[in-house]
Amino acid sequence: MDYLQSIVDIAIISARLHVRKFVLSPGSRCAPLTLSIVRHPDLTTYVIPDERSAAYVALGMSQQTRETIGLVCTSGTAALNYAPAVAEAFYQQVPLLILTADRPPEWIDQQDGQAIRQQGIYGNHLKGSYQLPVSTEHKDAAWHVQRMLSEAIQLAQSYPQGPVQVNVPIREPFYPQPDERFHFDHKCKVIEEQKGECRLSETTWQELIEKIRQTPRVLLVPGQQLPSPALLESLNHLPFPIVSDIISNHHGLKNAVYHQDAFLISQEELKQSLQPDLLITYGNSVISKNLKLFLRKYQAKEHWHIQEAGAVADTYQSLTKVIRTSPEYFMAGLAGRLEEERQYKAYREQWLKTDREVAETHKRLAQEHTFHELAVVQQLLEALDGPVHLHLANSMVVRYANFVNLRGKEHVKVFANRGTSGIDGSSSTAVGHALANPGVTNILVTGDMAFFYDRNAFWHQYPLPNVKVFLMNNQGGVIFRMIDGPARQPELEEYFETKQTLEARHLAEEHEFTYYQAGNQLEFQKQLQEFLQNQTAPSIFEVKTDKIKSKEAFVSYKKHIASMGETEA
Amino acid sequence: MDYLQSIVDIAIISARLHVRKFVLSPGSRCAPLTLSIVRHPDLTTYVIPDERSAAYVALGMSQQTRETIGLVCTSGTAALNYAPAVAEAFYQQVPLLILTADRPPEWIDQQDGQAIRQQGIYGNHLKGSYQLPVSTEHKDAAWHVQRMLSEAIQLAQSYPQGPVQVNVPIREPFYPQPDERFHFDHKCKVIEEQKGECRLSETTWQELIEKIRQTPRVLLVPGQQLPSPALLESLNHLPFPIVSDIISNHHGLKNAVYHQDAFLISQEELKQSLQPDLLITYGNSVISKNLKLFLRKYQAKEHWHIQEAGAVADTYQSLTKVIRTSPEYFMAGLAGRLEEERQYKAYREQWLKTDREVAETHKRLAQEHTFHELAVVQQLLEALDGPVHLHLANSMVVRYANFVNLRGKEHVKVFANRGTSGIDGSSSTAVGHALANPGVTNILVTGDMAFFYDRNAFWHQYPLPNVKVFLMNNQGGVIFRMIDGPARQPELEEYFETKQTLEARHLAEEHEFTYYQAGNQLEFQKQLQEFLQNQTAPSIFEVKTDKIKSKEAFVSYKKHIASMGETEA
Repeated sequence: MDYLQSIVDIAIISARLHVRKFVLSPGSRCAPLTLSIVRHPDLTTYVIPDERSAAYVALGMSQQTRETIGLVCTSGTAALNYAPAVAEAFYQQVPLLILTADRPPEWIDQQDGQAIRQQGIYGNHLKGSYQLPVSTEHKDAAWHVQRMLSEAIQLAQSYPQGPVQVNVPIREPFYPQPDERFHFDHKCKVIEEQKGECRLSETTWQELIEKIRQTPRVLLVPGQQLPSPALLESLNHLPFPIVSDIISNHHGLKNAVYHQDAFLISQEELKQSLQPDLLITYGNSVISKNLKLFLRKYQAKEHWHIQEAGAVADTYQSLTKVIRTSPEYFMAGLAGRLEEERQYKAYREQWLKTDREVAETHKRLAQEHTFHELAVVQQLLEALDGPVHLHLANSMVVRYANFVNLRGKEHVKVFANRGTSGIDGSSSTAVGHALANPGVTNILVTGDMAFFYDRNAFWHQYPLPNVKVFLMNNQGGVIFRMIDGPARQPELEEYFETKQTLEARHLAEEHEFTYYQAGNQLEFQKQLQEFLQNQTAPSIFEVKTDKIKSKEAFVSYKKHIASMGETEA
Repeated sequence: MDYLQSIVDIAIISARLHVRKFVLSPGSRCAPLTLSIVRHPDLTTYVIPDERSAAYVALGMSQQTRETIGLVCTSGTAALNYAPAVAEAFYQQVPLLILTADRPPEWIDQQDGQAIRQQGIYGNHLKGSYQLPVSTEHKDAAWHVQRMLSEAIQLAQSYPQGPVQVNVPIREPFYPQPDERFHFDHKCKVIEEQKGECRLSETTWQELIEKIRQTPRVLLVPGQQLPSPALLESLNHLPFPIVSDIISNHHGLKNAVYHQDAFLISQEELKQSLQPDLLITYGNSVISKNLKLFLRKYQAKEHWHIQEAGAVADTYQSLTKVIRTSPEYFMAGLAGRLEEERQYKAYREQWLKTDREVAETHKRLAQEHTFHELAVVQQLLEALDGPVHLHLANSMVVRYANFVNLRGKEHVKVFANRGTSGIDGSSSTAVGHALANPGVTNILVTGDMAFFYDRNAFWHQYPLPNVKVFLMNNQGGVIFRMIDGPARQPELEEYFETKQTLEARHLAEEHEFTYYQAGNQLEFQKQLQEFLQNQTAPSIFEVKTDKIKSKEAFVSYKKHIASMGETEA
């Protein structure tokens, strides 16, 4: 087989197996891949020059479309710049097909440009790594290439989903002749996959239900997952308290607990009184450190985790049983088998009552109209209406947001890179959503460290009318001021907080974003609605918060909640 | 031993083994490392928030100081952002001590934040990878930690130098109590290394000299290396033609060949007439593709490569003997043993004559005062006088510069990231030089793709009065227009050149750089001297070149050189 045809086959098989969007970064070694994908009639491509950003853009596109997204880069450090997003995709279980162009093996380590040791470049943060043959002269070569592509894509798409790498060594010439045609009608072997569903036997169901019937204190704690209306529908029929971490996308539930991050700071007596006997979990991580500490200290006697396949984390150190099916199937099964039974009521009411009390505190907080970070995030989240994708950057933003939470905001879908919790790719991920679906408004809430770190998210030629950046700029990594340890060190400002002086104004000018700025409550209120309603252009709302005031307000808020716990106990 | 003391020991041993400068990025997990290093009286620290940039800054500092530079980052994707610079350091043989803070092993994959699989994270682009013990209770633990640190640093510093990783799992608490003292007088085991030197026996010398005496056509081709005055001194006494690639830092030589990249485009007859019988090489890569193609096609009968230790690349496919000593020792030995012997003269004169002819063409080019990229680079390089560090970004800049070269500019030291030839870290590398030695002026010559890719090089709190950025902004990756292959594709502009519209003006305002701009020859000439002479502030000279004119001029220049070859032949 002609080698170029084997590259064209990659495009053909990708299209057949539903990898339809590709994020490309410029390069010469990857030219045959780029041209095959660009010229394939069923594939859509996006060009993002900074590969670190490109890979996070692909991750965002996959979250948005729930499909596998392709990535193409040239050889050398280009491929290494994907590594942070690849690790995030691995832990967040996002399917990516990473095509890295490479020199042929005989030229590695021979001091030619852009040649590194690319095989296994993403270490253990990959579902699988494939090496395309460099020669396709043997009659089995076409079968090898085609089979490998099907395998790689299936692996990325099988549960738990994740990134795969196909390393593609390419010899010169990289470019076709002007009259050379690409044969997209080439007969390719494609192995399709028909997925099955993991179900539980009726005997198993009876055992599980029996156990649940005997246990009045059952607690549900979902971790991060994509929004699932079917799952929420079942959960609305279950009688257990459900702790709704903001990244679990459970805020469409009628009766859930939202302020756990606040009241689990509280007195030991309160926490003891909330100890579950059976903990049921599913999904990935939760934000709330207080929730994790609570569940580790006041451990459930039994802890079931619902997960179809793959390794299971023992986040709360209490895991006793892994149930191999999907949360949707499991909760529907429970809802169908359990009546609204009285024995669960007291425990649920205990959680909901505590939660309502914090909600009241939040209402008062909102009426105070003070200008500090927690209050600013609260006002933003309350002002959201209608369908938006809310992207929460790591460090303080996602924590504030989890304290406030999104009770009743069922149209808001929440995304955050909590696979690895890095500050490096939130903006690019939001851009990925925006490009993949121009019909959805994306609101990125971010801090200055995360925002300027990933500013190349905006360095490309695509208009982003559906992106709104809500930037809290306090000129440094204020999270370190919030933690007791670093706050007490003389090195706080220079080595932890890392004072930085950039403003987003210049960036807004560079990229022609509409720019709003607020430095006090009056300015903030005045512009928030306009920022949210403006539909014509990408925009940045830079809210210049004061780190010292914001810290004091947050500390006093937490003290208040804790003392509320005191009167409780 | 107290675990904190084992971390403090890292700082003590680093200082003792001459790792005296550290580049830190903020994080909580790494706090004990950060504090130990910041508080150690003999260590100097720099805080760079974007880890991708931080690692390139460290690489630049090591080039500047020729010492091992330390890096400290927190756990998670922070460490992955080092990967591109680590690969560059590996191939460029730059010693780095990379300290990555980590969660303790029992918490990996348990859905806690910033926990990834950090061991072996840099794959095969490391000289070695070490894992610190997580518990130091056993009596041998102090020995283990201390021995490992000595081993790691020695490995980084042994020839060929390169990066090592020490992964440091750290349990909470991360922060010392306010009254807790760090014991920098702790008695630490340190294993020092006394280096030896590889010498050749007199018998070996006689054999080598005998061979050389019988060979009138001996060609020397040094690859990239740091400037070495001792080496140049010996070379000035040798009778062979020496091809001086710009990154080899051989432009202090009296009689070298500088325009090989131009005249080796030329007619086959000329190239055939220049074929060597014995090729002697040392150092790393060369820029010139034409030189590589020439040496691969018109192979020397014998090819000796001088390199003390480590794997040797067969760049020209002609390698027959590796000689295990340093180029300095080898060339001094040759110079001492060979008289200026007549048999070498004709071959050398053949190279030098061709070179002189191209030099004449360059002179005429300079007098034409035309405004295109090659001419602009030529005018810049000619205007350099006095000691500067010249940093050449990858893609077109380093190629133009190699065509022009630096004949006689012995005070100019040239740096370029040609280990992997990525476009991603040139600015940060230059910043590393500037921070490590405020007494040296650094001129970074770069293109718009490389410059905006790595703009976070300037995102920190250090003044950079000794940095001058010479930016050729042609709004895209014009290298693709220069190559025939992509230039013929309809996808050229969108998928290869990747049009980008940023100007450096905003960046200059953000970071308070003095900003110059030129869009034609008059403006260019007017401002070049001021740009070079201004000593008070960091500055950017943005030269807005036209990609089409620049390509045409470059094509016509190469045609002219080739036709010169014709009259030759």
